[in-house]
Amino acid sequence: MPKANHFTTIEQMEADSARLRETACEVCAETYEDRVKTQTPHCKFGEDGICCKNCSMGPCRITSKAPRGICGADAHAIAGRNYLRAIAAGTASHSDHAREILHVLRDTKPEGPYIVRDEKKLVRLAAEWGVATDGRDIYEIAHDVASVGLLEFGKPDGFQLFSRRAPKERQELWEREGIMPRAIDREIATAMHMTHMGNTADAESLVRQGLRTGLSNGWGGSMIGTEITDILFGTPTVWTTEGNLGVLEADQVNLVVHGHDPAFSEMVVTAAEDKELVNYARSKGIKGINVVGLCCTANEVAMRHGVRMAGNFLQQENVILTGACDLMCVDIQCIFPALPALAQCFHTKFVTSSPIARIPGAIHIEFHPETAYEQAKEIVKMAIDNYERRDASKVYIPESKQQATVGYPTEQIIKHLDTITNSHLDELGSYRPAIDAIKAGVLRGAVAIVGCNNPRVRPDYSHFEIMKELIENDVLIVATGCAAQMATKAGLLNKDAKYACGDGLRRVCELLDIPPILHMGACVDISRMMLLAAGIAEDWGVKLTEIPVVGCAPEWMSEKAVSIANYVVSTGLDVYLGIEPQVKGSSQMMELITEGTRKITGGGFIISTDPHVLVKNILDGLEVKRAALGI
Amino acid sequence: MPKANHFTTIEQMEADSARLRETACEVCAETYEDRVKTQTPHCKFGEDGICCKNCSMGPCRITSKAPRGICGADAHAIAGRNYLRAIAAGTASHSDHAREILHVLRDTKPEGPYIVRDEKKLVRLAAEWGVATDGRDIYEIAHDVASVGLLEFGKPDGFQLFSRRAPKERQELWEREGIMPRAIDREIATAMHMTHMGNTADAESLVRQGLRTGLSNGWGGSMIGTEITDILFGTPTVWTTEGNLGVLEADQVNLVVHGHDPAFSEMVVTAAEDKELVNYARSKGIKGINVVGLCCTANEVAMRHGVRMAGNFLQQENVILTGACDLMCVDIQCIFPALPALAQCFHTKFVTSSPIARIPGAIHIEFHPETAYEQAKEIVKMAIDNYERRDASKVYIPESKQQATVGYPTEQIIKHLDTITNSHLDELGSYRPAIDAIKAGVLRGAVAIVGCNNPRVRPDYSHFEIMKELIENDVLIVATGCAAQMATKAGLLNKDAKYACGDGLRRVCELLDIPPILHMGACVDISRMMLLAAGIAEDWGVKLTEIPVVGCAPEWMSEKAVSIANYVVSTGLDVYLGIEPQVKGSSQMMELITEGTRKITGGGFIISTDPHVLVKNILDGLEVKRAALGI
Repeated sequence: MPKANHFTTIEQMEADSARLRETACEVCAETYEDRVKTQTPHCKFGEDGICCKNCSMGPCRITSKAPRGICGADAHAIAGRNYLRAIAAGTASHSDHAREILHVLRDTKPEGPYIVRDEKKLVRLAAEWGVATDGRDIYEIAHDVASVGLLEFGKPDGFQLFSRRAPKERQELWEREGIMPRAIDREIATAMHMTHMGNTADAESLVRQGLRTGLSNGWGGSMIGTEITDILFGTPTVWTTEGNLGVLEADQVNLVVHGHDPAFSEMVVTAAEDKELVNYARSKGIKGINVVGLCCTANEVAMRHGVRMAGNFLQQENVILTGACDLMCVDIQCIFPALPALAQCFHTKFVTSSPIARIPGAIHIEFHPETAYEQAKEIVKMAIDNYERRDASKVYIPESKQQATVGYPTEQIIKHLDTITNSHLDELGSYRPAIDAIKAGVLRGAVAIVGCNNPRVRPDYSHFEIMKELIENDVLIVATGCAAQMATKAGLLNKDAKYACGDGLRRVCELLDIPPILHMGACVDISRMMLLAAGIAEDWGVKLTEIPVVGCAPEWMSEKAVSIANYVVSTGLDVYLGIEPQVKGSSQMMELITEGTRKITGGGFIISTDPHVLVKNILDGLEVKRAALGI
Repeated sequence: MPKANHFTTIEQMEADSARLRETACEVCAETYEDRVKTQTPHCKFGEDGICCKNCSMGPCRITSKAPRGICGADAHAIAGRNYLRAIAAGTASHSDHAREILHVLRDTKPEGPYIVRDEKKLVRLAAEWGVATDGRDIYEIAHDVASVGLLEFGKPDGFQLFSRRAPKERQELWEREGIMPRAIDREIATAMHMTHMGNTADAESLVRQGLRTGLSNGWGGSMIGTEITDILFGTPTVWTTEGNLGVLEADQVNLVVHGHDPAFSEMVVTAAEDKELVNYARSKGIKGINVVGLCCTANEVAMRHGVRMAGNFLQQENVILTGACDLMCVDIQCIFPALPALAQCFHTKFVTSSPIARIPGAIHIEFHPETAYEQAKEIVKMAIDNYERRDASKVYIPESKQQATVGYPTEQIIKHLDTITNSHLDELGSYRPAIDAIKAGVLRGAVAIVGCNNPRVRPDYSHFEIMKELIENDVLIVATGCAAQMATKAGLLNKDAKYACGDGLRRVCELLDIPPILHMGACVDISRMMLLAAGIAEDWGVKLTEIPVVGCAPEWMSEKAVSIANYVVSTGLDVYLGIEPQVKGSSQMMELITEGTRKITGGGFIISTDPHVLVKNILDGLEVKRAALGI
């Protein structure tokens, strides 16, 4: 493995963080690590999911001496309700993001600021959704598609339109099991209703509604978000870019976009290339405007513009601690409320843009699609003007950065597979070559590695260890979200990472000219992974539950992750979790999420906080699937 | 006050409960009082609203040494998020109830089982909602109205149609303040999204979304629920009935309907009058079939059929403890999960009917509108067959019961006011006579007393004390939910309760032939109270915030109550709470809910756990309003 030692190790990343913590000390700022100290040990009742706050008779907590809350709810009811509420919140988050994107689509017009960039995808989706396209203006089609999409959230009848994209077997199963997702917001409301005092106390009913609510996200909200984002900003293609704190530039304006919804950050990226603003920066003797991303906003703009990525979830404070962040502009989700106070220890301007995510201490510039470009310019100008306020004595930018090749939506994967398909013998546009590689044992299978960081475990360590071991074992990885960002920081998205792979996977990487870990996007893009898995199963001619493909969330943290895990399991794939779902206090819930759902959907959770055990479990799981297929 | 001593006192009610607790001891059953003991003291973090379970980095708890959670959320963000989630859950519950009722309306047909009973109200609503009525079949109209109603939950654009019923001043204020409610489920989803990790940390934004989410309930879901229920089962009229445990009969089949959604209980009530079943009971030597209600289901069937009421929320276990409950059939909300285990200590059959509220240990007969009547008959037959299994040695039915006159929707109140209107001089159908009485000081004002029981205070005591003191002070009371049930049990809904009133209120009671406390229905019917207040303000020609009318929830417990309190405050009325909202750990939240909302909507919370202090506050509040009006 000649070049594997080029990886940025966890120890190096931790050294960078430690150096930045020194700055934090100097400016009397606290970081999440300080807060972890004051917040641990955590409340055991909460960790185990057996604290109920759903009415004001309580809160109630389950113990051996108090096995029921005041109403009589037991550990199973309480843990189940808490779990379902988490799924509801996660579904609401991803889906509401999609709704905002649909509103932007409805506001598109030829003169911008928002236009239709992927007309082919729009027309395909219009056809799928029954919107007339013949001879119609592309913007008329766009607006009608947006209207159909918006109804997916609240239509009184029928199921999610995208559920039809799933294999027939899945659709029939979902209907049979009563988990076929209806309108997205309705599933959320139902989940909230079921968990209200005096309603569902049956853990299995709660878990089933969790599956359905999750499906309304994965084959509903998230998939809508992904599709419409592609239509608006272009379906991602391959970009070579860079990641980690070293992408911040000492002699440029550093403008950081952070969050999840790319609608505003797309405008910021464009505005930063505006000649007027570039010249304005130059007029101040500044070399350039360096837009970099954080969290899933980074994934979005990296995949569409090659914008460099400063880091993932637990890196957000580090970016400010470099002292070189002139402005951080955030949209929604996973934004530390700690940031404005931290920014105030430096010259950094901290700007919120969404009414959904207001944070005290921030400058609030509420984003409106019609004025988005002007607002983006205003923000870029603010960043430029702020550059001169940088305090050199506080600046330290770690050197660490790695090259990364990103941008592998299913369309791009198919393109690569097509390059090795003999078009005289085989059909193009198929996953067959990948399936053949799996059948032949060149690849042992594929794992979708997704999810957040979580200080419950050594940050990024589990991601790193699991990724390294899997590729060594000829398992192809697709990644999104903070997991993909970790791979970026480590250098695992570098094509040279093939040298860290087993022979089979290395050959595949070379043949297809891909890195061993394919960056598929933001956490909302896990819907792409569902389509990938469904496509593989269909082209293979087997059930989704049979293919040696699984999901893994080593360091998940958010309620979105709980929702995602539920739609992945509903789709029929096992999910390997490195953080325990907070239901441990209920034996029924533990059984339901690990075995119970498997009886319903064919998928379930396998949980271990030890990444090496998790890898072993994953490899064993893939081999069991392979054996069952006789390969 | 010659007859006031006829009230059933709290001490008598407690003596009944104590006697039933003896039975519980004998059969080794536990009751909520046992569980209160094991669950107290409650977790202080939860009580104060400063425990955050919204991601798996936590749970985090705020202390002076740990002023921020791991993400940096402070006490204000955490308490605000918890508060908003409670509103979302409460809104989901009331509104989902309404949605089920709309589905029943959509299933109506002339041959039943569900028919349109209030055609006039349907036609009025159709006109209001723009549904064509001329020359159309009433069922066609019904189905179209149902379709419009169902869209109120998920329409992508526009505001709640019923918001137009509010005074213009309110509508303008709601729009101006950004709290005009959009689709109901959307407000729930937005609330869940805002409270997801890394989104809103600004307490005021959370409170504002709470107001909007509440409004989508009060001038949305709940109002839809009430209107459609009236259309389906008839707008309530005055009935004289009875309440408290003494309504259970030793020599009859006691079938208890419990919950909130009247769709199924209406069928049970009808089925219990089915000749075939009555004869079947007689063939077994049973005197009759005694259907009685619990909780809001009781309110619904009492107002439409005079069905007797066994009690309110904390009476639910008592009913089973009598040993004389042959079958309890529940629908949704506020049903103790403890009941199936308790029922198993007796011969009692416990039947759940909703997929939203499954409880382990119950017999589940899932209610479907098309087969509802057959299912109801099956349940009545099950109750009859179970009668002979009653164990006489375990039976003790307390004698306590009181006569109650119930059924005062706004239409009924207007009818009574019309009887004293000189139609030669004044318009009929107006609240003018009531307004004149308030202006003259004969009445000092009106208070809507609503809400649950909560063992945090001496159950029913606060209700009783506040009601007695207010009517002594010439304050007319309108009541719903468990508060109305408490008034029933105590005898305060007896017309003779006028003797416990001040002179002014007594005269009004005599003149209008009403009790001093008007039973307006279930908790979903607090929407009727909003229309009442709006009607008074409009007929008076002043703002809603100016009239001496307030709300009071002395013993609230559920998240529905938090949602309700928010729409009442948004409507412009002060709400007096006898239980503290769980936000005490945040000074900002405490300020926002008591004073902050007053600056936005004109209404806010006044909180005291001492009912006598609360009464003083209410009376003072009414006098301040009176003084401002110069009356």
